[in-house]
Amino acid sequence: MLEELKERVCEANLALVRHGLVVLTWGNASAIDRECGRIVIKPSGVAYDAMKPEDMVVVDLEGVVVEGSGRPSSDTPTHLALYKAFPTIGGVVHTHSTHATAWAQAARPVPLLGTTHADVFHTDVPVTDEMPDDRIRDAYEAATGESIIAAFRRLGIDPNETPAALAVHHGPFTWGATVEKAVEHAVTLEAVAEMAAHTLALNPDSRMNPAMTEKHYSRKHGSGAYYGQP
Amino acid sequence: MLEELKERVCEANLALVRHGLVVLTWGNASAIDRECGRIVIKPSGVAYDAMKPEDMVVVDLEGVVVEGSGRPSSDTPTHLALYKAFPTIGGVVHTHSTHATAWAQAARPVPLLGTTHADVFHTDVPVTDEMPDDRIRDAYEAATGESIIAAFRRLGIDPNETPAALAVHHGPFTWGATVEKAVEHAVTLEAVAEMAAHTLALNPDSRMNPAMTEKHYSRKHGSGAYYGQP
Amino acid sequence: MLEELKERVCEANLALVRHGLVVLTWGNASAIDRECGRIVIKPSGVAYDAMKPEDMVVVDLEGVVVEGSGRPSSDTPTHLALYKAFPTIGGVVHTHSTHATAWAQAARPVPLLGTTHADVFHTDVPVTDEMPDDRIRDAYEAATGESIIAAFRRLGIDPNETPAALAVHHGPFTWGATVEKAVEHAVTLEAVAEMAAHTLALNPDSRMNPAMTEKHYSRKHGSGAYYGQP
Amino acid sequence: MLEELKERVCEANLALVRHGLVVLTWGNASAIDRECGRIVIKPSGVAYDAMKPEDMVVVDLEGVVVEGSGRPSSDTPTHLALYKAFPTIGGVVHTHSTHATAWAQAARPVPLLGTTHADVFHTDVPVTDEMPDDRIRDAYEAATGESIIAAFRRLGIDPNETPAALAVHHGPFTWGATVEKAVEHAVTLEAVAEMAAHTLALNPDSRMNPAMTEKHYSRKHGSGAYYGQP
Repeated sequence: MLEELKERVCEANLALVRHGLVVLTWGNASAIDRECGRIVIKPSGVAYDAMKPEDMVVVDLEGVVVEGSGRPSSDTPTHLALYKAFPTIGGVVHTHSTHATAWAQAARPVPLLGTTHADVFHTDVPVTDEMPDDRIRDAYEAATGESIIAAFRRLGIDPNETPAALAVHHGPFTWGATVEKAVEHAVTLEAVAEMAAHTLALNPDSRMNPAMTEKHYSRKHGSGAYYGQP
Repeated sequence: MLEELKERVCEANLALVRHGLVVLTWGNASAIDRECGRIVIKPSGVAYDAMKPEDMVVVDLEGVVVEGSGRPSSDTPTHLALYKAFPTIGGVVHTHSTHATAWAQAARPVPLLGTTHADVFHTDVPVTDEMPDDRIRDAYEAATGESIIAAFRRLGIDPNETPAALAVHHGPFTWGATVEKAVEHAVTLEAVAEMAAHTLALNPDSRMNPAMTEKHYSRKHGSGAYYGQP
Repeated sequence: MLEELKERVCEANLALVRHGLVVLTWGNASAIDRECGRIVIKPSGVAYDAMKPEDMVVVDLEGVVVEGSGRPSSDTPTHLALYKAFPTIGGVVHTHSTHATAWAQAARPVPLLGTTHADVFHTDVPVTDEMPDDRIRDAYEAATGESIIAAFRRLGIDPNETPAALAVHHGPFTWGATVEKAVEHAVTLEAVAEMAAHTLALNPDSRMNPAMTEKHYSRKHGSGAYYGQP
Repeated sequence: MLEELKERVCEANLALVRHGLVVLTWGNASAIDRECGRIVIKPSGVAYDAMKPEDMVVVDLEGVVVEGSGRPSSDTPTHLALYKAFPTIGGVVHTHSTHATAWAQAARPVPLLGTTHADVFHTDVPVTDEMPDDRIRDAYEAATGESIIAAFRRLGIDPNETPAALAVHHGPFTWGATVEKAVEHAVTLEAVAEMAAHTLALNPDSRMNPAMTEKHYSRKHGSGAYYGQP
């Protein structure tokens, strides 16, 4: 069942290692088959170097394990919340990548300071609000997803245009039309998070011209896009 | 004698290289067999690329070499002090990893700013007090161990809940139920030490909510743990 | 047609990956055959790990595709503007390398602080002025090239002596007599951009003696050069 | 002639690449045979990936090429000045490693802040004074060596106890009893230069206790040394 998706999700998890975004058993990638409403996700706490497609766990949208002998990632409820709220996305990635996590720990959005950012994210990458203590205690992982959704609603950002968020004091989540796109967004987010920190150290008042933001975003997205192959 | 433990200790030392925590001959990992009271430790000043299990040195809890042709690591008395004071630990690791050592040199504990930290360390990672000159001169390595133990006592921290310390102006020591766990803790400490420095540069007032700390620590530890495979 | 140049341009693009200057599909390298007025450039948005010489696109100086089934890099108009304005150059490289991009985002030139810089770049590496909104909207990539040319004219810098510029809020462009030289200049620019940031953090007033600048530049360039093999 | 030394010098140069201390054709390592007064050094401006022992150049103490078809490193006069002034050293290494070069560009010595430093360098690693313009123009490389020697004399430091210096606005030179030791010192210098920058960002007043300095230096050096194998 969902053999091709298991291979792609396994490969996406391994790509996180190759891109230097995760170490030990940190991080997780998942993909959804919208037709059957099943999510394929990394098992919890399993070493990357022995991970195989058949180790991936299949869950339904309520988190019930449908296939697989292991426990799904402990962050599964966050993934599910995002799949339910953002109906166009096909993959979700979570990492503790160094610089994106530092911005999350600082409780600051990653500011839009250049075209590397604008090519992929249409706005600052938002950070979630602190969660009330009872939500942390009772259903933390689902509440993490809800806090991301709330941040996009509060700021009026389209999650398809800015496919990333920082869970405050935790780390980055990214998503995309496919799990491969979600991985690319995780790579880009870590790069722009690092660049933004260096930029503000050199010039605390740096800010990008809105016309540049529009230009670069529209080079890659929408009907006038001309980046990449047709 | 202790052939399996020698293999594991050798492999743990090599893992420090692979994780980028040590260069040249820096760093050392050891494990204890609590039944026979013997410690297996890296030989002093030996190159990692030629290191084999049979090069590991076996010492008793007083540091007397029981087996092995080489001298044990010069930090052996620190390892012994920790094994004696912390009866539940099975492995100890010492590195000069870049960011953890920078915090040690700054004489500051690594502050608990996010879930990466809270997943593994229940509190700030403490730094030892400066040692009096006579202790430095007479039995420096043993005194380093004692200063770590004193820091945990003074702060009321359980060494099983925060399995790491910074020896002031020196570098990190980590430990765990096994030497493999001690290596994981060294990897995590270096990551959170780097993230914490970046975080404070972005927001000097960053601090994590205590409820988040409890939640993340308890996801991985204690009777309610649900991270990893059962 | 231009088979040898396609191999060299493909290899130059792959060298950017090996030197850690690009990830995903970012960056691009091109070379010109001045005799026939043709430019060989990387295709737009193609993954590096599958890139082959026959994927390179050939365009004329007006950007018309002369050979190749793919779209040329979206930055092609910037490359063309540089080839037209700087008649002695044979190759152009664009990356989003971390530290050079941070200076570009900070809208600051990379200051000449040491001999690593002076060996290759005779002056600070200039940053372009912000572009007017209409230029961004209408012909952004060509305007990027023009803004680089304008910066050199305004500052009175010889592009052969300082073969690099920062496109503001975007990233570095480098060039050279050959595409291989343009790659070397991209490597050097990233290194000196990183060193300059660290240097100013340690000493905000650092500045290199002009006599040192002349000495190091002339060790490698001009009639008295004595670096490298004759 | 000197075949074994050529192999060792070639290998030392390649070790600089493996340790991440040099890129492109930067950096150089040499060794002296004190019996015959000949120095084996890297050729100038040659790519590391094709370098072979037979490419090494042999010069006498006045810099006259005795064997080898290539030009010796342009920094040869600096190496020669150090061999003449420091009669116990057998190898010299020069790099543009990132953090050591940043301290050199900042015109600040690398401060002794921890045991990683004290294990190898007995004092702050000194930085040379700015050179007068006429020395820069006339015999820059020899003058660089003399400025290092002058710094040690002025500060009363023994070059055997602190086998490293920063040439101001240029970069680090290290030396040792052998070229292999000089490489180790270059690795250590880069590591402590990076740690020192991070340390001062966390605590500008950090300073190591002199008793700790003595203890760590004497663990590895002198008659009471007990680090490494006897």
